[in-house]
Amino acid sequence: MTDPLTNLITTYHELNAAVVDELHEEPSALEFMRYVATHRPFVVRRAVSEWKACRKWDAGYLRQTMGDEEVRVAVTPSGNADAVVERKEDDTLLFVEPHEIFEPFAEFLDSVVQQSSSSSSTTAAGHVKYAQTQNDNLRNEYSPLFPDVPANIPFARIALGQKAEAINLWLGDDRSTTAMHKDNYENLYCQIRGEKEFVLLSPGEMACVNERVLGRGRYVPGSAAAAATSSSGDDGDDDDDTRMVGDLEVQLDVHAERVPVATWDPDEPEKHATAYSHLAKPLRVTLREGDMLYLPSMWYHKVSQRVGEEGFVCAVNYWYDMDFAGSHWASTSFVRDVYYAEQMRPQYPRLEVGEERAEGSE
Amino acid sequence: MTDPLTNLITTYHELNAAVVDELHEEPSALEFMRYVATHRPFVVRRAVSEWKACRKWDAGYLRQTMGDEEVRVAVTPSGNADAVVERKEDDTLLFVEPHEIFEPFAEFLDSVVQQSSSSSSTTAAGHVKYAQTQNDNLRNEYSPLFPDVPANIPFARIALGQKAEAINLWLGDDRSTTAMHKDNYENLYCQIRGEKEFVLLSPGEMACVNERVLGRGRYVPGSAAAAATSSSGDDGDDDDDTRMVGDLEVQLDVHAERVPVATWDPDEPEKHATAYSHLAKPLRVTLREGDMLYLPSMWYHKVSQRVGEEGFVCAVNYWYDMDFAGSHWASTSFVRDVYYAEQMRPQYPRLEVGEERAEGSE
Ligand SMILES: O=C(O)CCC(=O)C(=O)O
Ligand SMILES: O=C(O)CCC(=O)C(=O)O
Repeated sequence: MTDPLTNLITTYHELNAAVVDELHEEPSALEFMRYVATHRPFVVRRAVSEWKACRKWDAGYLRQTMGDEEVRVAVTPSGNADAVVERKEDDTLLFVEPHEIFEPFAEFLDSVVQQSSSSSSTTAAGHVKYAQTQNDNLRNEYSPLFPDVPANIPFARIALGQKAEAINLWLGDDRSTTAMHKDNYENLYCQIRGEKEFVLLSPGEMACVNERVLGRGRYVPGSAAAAATSSSGDDGDDDDDTRMVGDLEVQLDVHAERVPVATWDPDEPEKHATAYSHLAKPLRVTLREGDMLYLPSMWYHKVSQRVGEEGFVCAVNYWYDMDFAGSHWASTSFVRDVYYAEQMRPQYPRLEVGEERAEGSE
Repeated sequence: MTDPLTNLITTYHELNAAVVDELHEEPSALEFMRYVATHRPFVVRRAVSEWKACRKWDAGYLRQTMGDEEVRVAVTPSGNADAVVERKEDDTLLFVEPHEIFEPFAEFLDSVVQQSSSSSSTTAAGHVKYAQTQNDNLRNEYSPLFPDVPANIPFARIALGQKAEAINLWLGDDRSTTAMHKDNYENLYCQIRGEKEFVLLSPGEMACVNERVLGRGRYVPGSAAAAATSSSGDDGDDDDDTRMVGDLEVQLDVHAERVPVATWDPDEPEKHATAYSHLAKPLRVTLREGDMLYLPSMWYHKVSQRVGEEGFVCAVNYWYDMDFAGSHWASTSFVRDVYYAEQMRPQYPRLEVGEERAEGSE
């Protein structure tokens, strides 16, 4: 008898092509609902090209519209916000959040654009800035820009019978990468400037991503890290100090609850692989200016980017609450439970039972 | 850590009420698609009351329309077509198909109606007749009646983007019960005469139904059984002999492949229970004349019935092919694989590993 997790992944791939469907016009609400029903992604080429955002958003227009509004910016050494970092001291893996600063939008944008046009691959201090707050920022921090996009995606609003829960603006340069993770939202992701490459794994491929329950940390400026206590006191409200920060160092937060994090990266398939990772068939899709991606809830995604002519990458995405009723959530949790149960079963010597994993499977 | 199968069932029930949604008008294609997406059943009261079938089908009209057309009728001792039977000889469980006869429709209907009006609970020979061929019979055997129902259910045709794969007529009396089973079709079940009670279990409750891989048998008339070899030669084409049959006896078919069959009955919850059966929350819904049920693919269902004024029970159902893409099929198979893997794991002494189960889990 084949192992159930192996069977799940191979059966899924037998029944589903490892490609993202390409549409050339927006789906109707009903056509969209068919994708939601099967939890399958699609891309609509040039779906949003006519949005004011797509027509107008260059550095000058953004600077003029946003002016000196303070925005929250993630700062990391290499573009790795919310990512797994191996601590130099002891080789343990940590889930590390970015250092956060507040700065006037115009200054932030300037440093992004300047970085993109400079030939060196890092800024003066070597830091990467990314506006990626994911907290409905386009209707809050960036509200002056909100009129340039529709308040909802009509086919999604009609199909799902609800309005967007969050609308997020993402703005950065080539160097930022969002590490593999999943969200419990139906996601309509619209590329405005530059390009993004999405690497996708279906929820049933959970056993491939090597989810581990990790301690948490945060990047803090060098001096702060040196002086730091082990609690997470530094919350970025001392913006003047942090706008120009020195070296960023990982500060462990010993009080924070450990979090389950995917540690396998399909782009480095040999590292952190599980016994299942070789069965994964990552879907890859590149979004260009004006393209829209439907990323179904609970799909794993890793996102990297390339600036466009304007010297920055910018996208807007709409998150709609997923439906926890029906079997989708329960089935996804079940896969995870079976995976952890297998990890803990001593008679499988090829898989080690880590303390971290045991904790994550309550 | 809770056992994954237990967690799956309890999580599902936490997120889904154990009731069948009641609609008072037909859903739109989009509303229907939302139910398909979550694999949740609903009933539409009086949805089909205006169908010609609902207005016209009494015994006289049916007799006149169908006349002497020969129809295929399932004959069983107690209304148990396609059911699990415990063999008297050795207590083994078998999956037993009905004896089949061909008889002129008018004769078949007469015996159903006569049985319903008689005070005894069995016919002369004690047999129960049920027209239940499930092979698109309304567009074939019963085609004279087909004009009395729509050729498709519009909201389903539009939502699913396909025509009905099979349209079936079901005609019998109080005594027939269809045992718990599942089908890989989206089912729209329309009650024309009498009532049906459906007992439903979601696919994730697979561990509750005590699926076992059983040998197969068929009811054959007593003399035939006595004379029978152990192969399944008797196919019901000797109709004159079988129209009036004596005792029906189970004849084992040793050559037929064994089949996985649900053996737990929510109406007799103590019998054939698994360690999970007590976690099941069967949904119950009674269809009355004119009601329509959406029974999602892969749901377990047991169906019993009560004749209406006309002395028979009659229903028409539409089967639409389910979508094997996406995760529905793969997830459902995964639950089954995990269940069988657990059955085979020696360290769980409370569950015995039966040879039958081992065979079914390849
Ligand atoms: O654009 C990115 O960097 C990440 C996007 C993302 O993770 C999301 O939309 O959920
Ligand atoms: O009406 C019945 O007896 C059974 C119906 C059924 O099993 C079905 O429609 O799939």
